[in-house]
Amino acid sequence: MRLSCENTVLRSIRPSEEERMIIRAVADEIICEVNKSGIATGMVVGSVARDTWVSGDKDLDIFMLFSPEVSREELEEKGLGLARQISKTFSGVFVEKYAEHPYINANIRGFDIDLVPCYAVESASMIKSAVDRTPFHTRYIKEKISGHTDDVLLLKQFSKACGVYGSDQMTEGFAGYLCELLICYYGGFTELLEEASKWRPGIVIDIEKHQAKELTEPLVVIDPVDPCRNVAASLSATRMCEFAEFARGYLKNPSEIYFEAPVSKEISSEDFKTMIEDRGSSFYAVVFKTPGLIPDIVVPQLRRSAIGINGLLERNGFVVNRFDCSMKEENCMILYELLVDQLPNVEKREGPPVWNAENSDKFLKKHIGNTFAGPYIENERYYVEIERKYPDVYSILLSGEILSSGLGKHVRKSIENEMNIYKDEECWSKEFSDFLGDFVMKKSPLIERMMKQTESLNFQT
Amino acid sequence: MRLSCENTVLRSIRPSEEERMIIRAVADEIICEVNKSGIATGMVVGSVARDTWVSGDKDLDIFMLFSPEVSREELEEKGLGLARQISKTFSGVFVEKYAEHPYINANIRGFDIDLVPCYAVESASMIKSAVDRTPFHTRYIKEKISGHTDDVLLLKQFSKACGVYGSDQMTEGFAGYLCELLICYYGGFTELLEEASKWRPGIVIDIEKHQAKELTEPLVVIDPVDPCRNVAASLSATRMCEFAEFARGYLKNPSEIYFEAPVSKEISSEDFKTMIEDRGSSFYAVVFKTPGLIPDIVVPQLRRSAIGINGLLERNGFVVNRFDCSMKEENCMILYELLVDQLPNVEKREGPPVWNAENSDKFLKKHIGNTFAGPYIENERYYVEIERKYPDVYSILLSGEILSSGLGKHVRKSIENEMNIYKDEECWSKEFSDFLGDFVMKKSPLIERMMKQTESLNFQT
Repeated sequence: MRLSCENTVLRSIRPSEEERMIIRAVADEIICEVNKSGIATGMVVGSVARDTWVSGDKDLDIFMLFSPEVSREELEEKGLGLARQISKTFSGVFVEKYAEHPYINANIRGFDIDLVPCYAVESASMIKSAVDRTPFHTRYIKEKISGHTDDVLLLKQFSKACGVYGSDQMTEGFAGYLCELLICYYGGFTELLEEASKWRPGIVIDIEKHQAKELTEPLVVIDPVDPCRNVAASLSATRMCEFAEFARGYLKNPSEIYFEAPVSKEISSEDFKTMIEDRGSSFYAVVFKTPGLIPDIVVPQLRRSAIGINGLLERNGFVVNRFDCSMKEENCMILYELLVDQLPNVEKREGPPVWNAENSDKFLKKHIGNTFAGPYIENERYYVEIERKYPDVYSILLSGEILSSGLGKHVRKSIENEMNIYKDEECWSKEFSDFLGDFVMKKSPLIERMMKQTESLNFQT
Repeated sequence: MRLSCENTVLRSIRPSEEERMIIRAVADEIICEVNKSGIATGMVVGSVARDTWVSGDKDLDIFMLFSPEVSREELEEKGLGLARQISKTFSGVFVEKYAEHPYINANIRGFDIDLVPCYAVESASMIKSAVDRTPFHTRYIKEKISGHTDDVLLLKQFSKACGVYGSDQMTEGFAGYLCELLICYYGGFTELLEEASKWRPGIVIDIEKHQAKELTEPLVVIDPVDPCRNVAASLSATRMCEFAEFARGYLKNPSEIYFEAPVSKEISSEDFKTMIEDRGSSFYAVVFKTPGLIPDIVVPQLRRSAIGINGLLERNGFVVNRFDCSMKEENCMILYELLVDQLPNVEKREGPPVWNAENSDKFLKKHIGNTFAGPYIENERYYVEIERKYPDVYSILLSGEILSSGLGKHVRKSIENEMNIYKDEECWSKEFSDFLGDFVMKKSPLIERMMKQTESLNFQT
């Protein structure tokens, strides 16, 4: 039984018959071209092949399957050659991209089409690269999903609304294939939500009962076509739990609100200033030019850099309340909120255990006579209280140590070139106004909807 | 082979023949009185009986051994009666005291004499109270210690100089009996120091090889007369390691300095102010009248209270660099050094795990709509950022919460009656000038001596 709000949502996200016909026609034409070449066989994969795409989506994935006897070099050369030729035949607008191996992204008749060469291996256990697995996914889902395509559409829309759709590094959420498998496994959208609302990290789902490896990710969904692979490997515990609470909230108060795209909490310079003054904490932003690479490369580096600088601050005694990072067109920002940004001169430093005579000797020689207090003993260790190296946050961030704090390669390059440190209200700029608003008013996806529901109730009464 | 400095020390701490004669004469007279009573047998115990007392010590322990057939009430009544009578015969100056059971402390001919009634049980396994064990200790040591009394004297003086002599709650160090056993076990003062300089917590010494219980204290020395008892139970890891490093230092640079009493680092009001300004941290002292009870009762309560208030400060987000307490004649002080004494309004609070639906519901109901940020999810838990209850240290210490922070009974009473909170230089008073000096200039016993040795070398050149 579909709830009325679900039917309403389905009416807007289910592709029309006309939409289906158009996309299939485009796909057929391209496949025909691939087959005509005589060197590869064309195959539609992804959500279009499985009938699980959301109306308006313009993505189309077409794989070109080569014989496994073709060498890797030949595959790349001939595959890209064929893809280029097809792109030119249809439109001429295309770019070369790289995943595990290169492919062509072309714009044909308004669609965003990936033309990917891969090997037509006999079974999934014989794949030569990750892309070879995709045709098997498509075949598996096509076989199992009939009758449940609406459930997949609802789940995708629901996950998008929750902000957890996408297995990319920024989202750390649910891939399309994962959504399809979950629907297969639980047997429907409502059935899935009922179970998911009780999820806690540690769930293992093994549809084909062939798990071949111990896995420790928060959610483990063994790939039906590969017993060693976790389809949910890139899902973080945070996203998993956000989805669980979103499901719980929806089941309690079903509403179309749970299918609407989240709205970014853009903030004005004045409001930002007021809010951080109310908090009373200290904000520091490290801002630098965005490296000229795709988000899938920059974002993980940005994350790693944010964690690295956080470690630098914490090693120097500063308590970070929260930190986050954002990659925009022009600039990247790594933002820290600190409880205090000034510490006293004195710093207590741990020394070696007293019973380690050699290290104790070195430690005593280094420190004797030039401390505030110590060396003294607490339990079995030496301690000294000495002059703090960095008594304020500025002095750390402006020191060279930031460059050796574990930055990602391209982030490091950009920071070496130019970096700005902003404090408190200086952190605000138009470019980051949504990121800053989301940061200071951070709420879980469910809470956002609950407050929206409360507001609309208040408005009605 | 004695080092020359050890011989010098021994000359000053070994009791003279005259001193021995005098103390033995007093002991004999009292024992004679006990025996004359016909109800008990007198026995000298403690260091005088074992010939291990340091010249100038005026303590004499005389036990009155009653038949085990006498009831407990009778023992106390008759024992105290006899002790009172003897005290009156000799001097008339005495007080009644309590350990596990009552005894009389008398001043006779300039000596501080404990007259303790106990049971003359047949073997140590049959003791009825802890004091019954003492005669067995004395007999054991008397039998084993011959030829090693000088070693015991050196060890006692060395431990005093290191500040680790005494098994009381303030010192948490080495009891006299423990010193004697260690000498018995290692076979001499130098032999002990050589081993002790390599000690690390976890040493087990079981002279009679009869340990009957797993024990986890830093140093375990099984009582030769009781297989279940650790003679070193009250020795802390800190004191054990301080002794180990002191031994190491002495073996490297033997000197009489290692047998001299430690000098308290009394500090003037001006120096204290300068030193804490240099440190840049915040000092807070809780001061109240000393409860009218013996240190063995007050000190453990004071310790517990200091730990309790420390917990209160840390639970409210304040980082305590170090804390300590001191019991003086008039007042007690609990002293805290904090890195900062002001925190921002905003406080991040941990909520329940998202998968705990019941607690999550309560948490959300409580916090939704009145937070700086959140509820939001990190990993599998909810968090909120809300108004901090106590943004400064004063407001915590002046709140009623201090009374429920785990204070000792008599400390609590005194604090309820009157308490003063002092900040930074206000903490100083003449009464606590040595405690405050020791606190801000804290050093391990070895470091004190090393700096003294360096100074004297500098002075010579």
